Amino acid sequence: MTEDNGFRIGSEALWELARDTLTDVGVPADTASLVAGILVDADVRGHPSHGVAMLPVYVQRVLEGGILTHATPTWKHLSETAGLVLGHGGFGQLAATMAAEHCAESAHDHGMAVVGVRGNNHIGMLAAYRRQFTERDVIGLILNVSGPSVSAPGAQFPTLGNDAICLVVPRRTGDPFIVDFATGVVACGKIREAALRGEAVSTEWLLDNTGHPSADPKDLDRGGSVPVFGGYKGLGVQLIIEVLAGVLAGGTVSPLVNRQRQRPDLPMNCSQLFVGFRTSLLGDTDPDALLHTLDLAIAMGYKNSPPDCYFPEQRERLHTARALESGIDIPKALADRLGWARRA
Amino acid sequence: MTEDNGFRIGSEALWELARDTLTDVGVPADTASLVAGILVDADVRGHPSHGVAMLPVYVQRVLEGGILTHATPTWKHLSETAGLVLGHGGFGQLAATMAAEHCAESAHDHGMAVVGVRGNNHIGMLAAYRRQFTERDVIGLILNVSGPSVSAPGAQFPTLGNDAICLVVPRRTGDPFIVDFATGVVACGKIREAALRGEAVSTEWLLDNTGHPSADPKDLDRGGSVPVFGGYKGLGVQLIIEVLAGVLAGGTVSPLVNRQRQRPDLPMNCSQLFVGFRTSLLGDTDPDALLHTLDLAIAMGYKNSPPDCYFPEQRERLHTARALESGIDIPKALADRLGWARRA
Repeated sequence: MTEDNGFRIGSEALWELARDTLTDVGVPADTASLVAGILVDADVRGHPSHGVAMLPVYVQRVLEGGILTHATPTWKHLSETAGLVLGHGGFGQLAATMAAEHCAESAHDHGMAVVGVRGNNHIGMLAAYRRQFTERDVIGLILNVSGPSVSAPGAQFPTLGNDAICLVVPRRTGDPFIVDFATGVVACGKIREAALRGEAVSTEWLLDNTGHPSADPKDLDRGGSVPVFGGYKGLGVQLIIEVLAGVLAGGTVSPLVNRQRQRPDLPMNCSQLFVGFRTSLLGDTDPDALLHTLDLAIAMGYKNSPPDCYFPEQRERLHTARALESGIDIPKALADRLGWARRA
Repeated sequence: MTEDNGFRIGSEALWELARDTLTDVGVPADTASLVAGILVDADVRGHPSHGVAMLPVYVQRVLEGGILTHATPTWKHLSETAGLVLGHGGFGQLAATMAAEHCAESAHDHGMAVVGVRGNNHIGMLAAYRRQFTERDVIGLILNVSGPSVSAPGAQFPTLGNDAICLVVPRRTGDPFIVDFATGVVACGKIREAALRGEAVSTEWLLDNTGHPSADPKDLDRGGSVPVFGGYKGLGVQLIIEVLAGVLAGGTVSPLVNRQRQRPDLPMNCSQLFVGFRTSLLGDTDPDALLHTLDLAIAMGYKNSPPDCYFPEQRERLHTARALESGIDIPKALADRLGWARRA
């Protein structure tokens, strides 16, 4: 039992709860299992913004038609090393899983591969698709174009998606190396977590609908926006994602994507790109040793000891250990919305 | 004649000067022509940090052995869609040109391609390799791993390269769309430009060799560093480049790369990755219209009029027009160092 009178639960039991919440609104069992697994994975890794906190949105979208529960992704185009999946407005995780599998398999067999997804919905945390790559000794680059919630440097209004980029690198021994982040100075979900907890946010995270800095997390879904990270260079990263996952893969860009909360009645029509490179594609290389060198070098750049988490996956590893040992906290507001309160 | 008593010169004449400066120290004519062209291209585009201001460094490195003037890059590995070029410590532009050509040609023929470069030297502004891609209707992604001059978020000392990333997107009509930037909050060359002009820099650009913010541009080459852009997310971009251009392509990472100014006697042993995707790889798409949508959307995000340059290539287009009309300014300090002063 946590302080806010929510509850704490093991990952397996949380997965069952999430799955049942989806099947209760008519989602087929296989789809519900897959989607629930991807959400709980985010909670385990310490990113609740991409975890079961998404369920109220998914449920609303299922009920209003934004997610077509019985849509099945199909291949529009498929060659040995390139493919395009059409999501048909179903759960985004279905098309994304299909794309990640094929991309990793093809890259393993042929050295490199690229698979796009078009006409899709929210696919959750990009790092959730890591195993398809790491199991096959393939480096995976995953890009996502989302609906407009991010403002350009110095701009007042949201015109760009909180697009995401993820790199998955298998290590020969130990956990994979993963970089996974969105282009907003903060993930929208982190602002919504604060709203759920009734807490204020940093005014560097949020502009209200008049373009002024705001500490009220509710302003995000009242026409507010999150500034792009890193100023003009961050905009550069954003535009690289827009071109690769939008223009190349999706025939779209984020200003044309439907925001999932604002239009629960419409598929987002968002798109993704998966690129795979076999680790050995360009010759012998030792990712473990080189990543270790990077880690050590960065740590040595601090005059005193480095921060607790200065290198990707350190934070996620801590959270995973904690979640597997002690379970995952579900805030009361979320439990109430999902009718989970009785499980406490 | 500019204020600082340097001189103004047309791009063609500047190219000849640059070429002759290189042949004077024994660089073969073909190589000197190529390298001079890539440097002058940066000056024309308004990035003098990557322009002929590099010549004093190149000349010193040629004289001391860091650049082997007669080295010829070779293919270590070559298939239809993947290749690895060995630079053998020659001018980086040679191996990079070979890699860009093959990558773009292969991607045009087979849909996608990837070419790495290993054992290389400085290759100049990444956008200089745009024509290989745009002429073949291929989207090009170019990544470079450099020697350590960048400090991690909150760190005091330089441990990472000012790595660079560039995306080249051909438009059906008009100039290509290009994103091109390095991971430092500012390009090291911009700090050195300020040093040449005897000007102070923003203390957000630079830490001195004790890890304190500094406004003295000379501190950069006295063991100082440039903070990575965008904090922890910027570090994420850095690490994506390290893995793709370093680990995958180069069998290296930036802490292992020799800094060209600190070790003029040694090849940098840096590496690059070139990835090409045929624009039509995943189906019909209209890059011109989608890029126009992005441009308009971003402009509309500003309550009043947007800044003069809010979208990539706007600044470069202005500079190119100005350079072609009025010529390029060469600062006196640079002209003196290169013995060009007599041309004023």
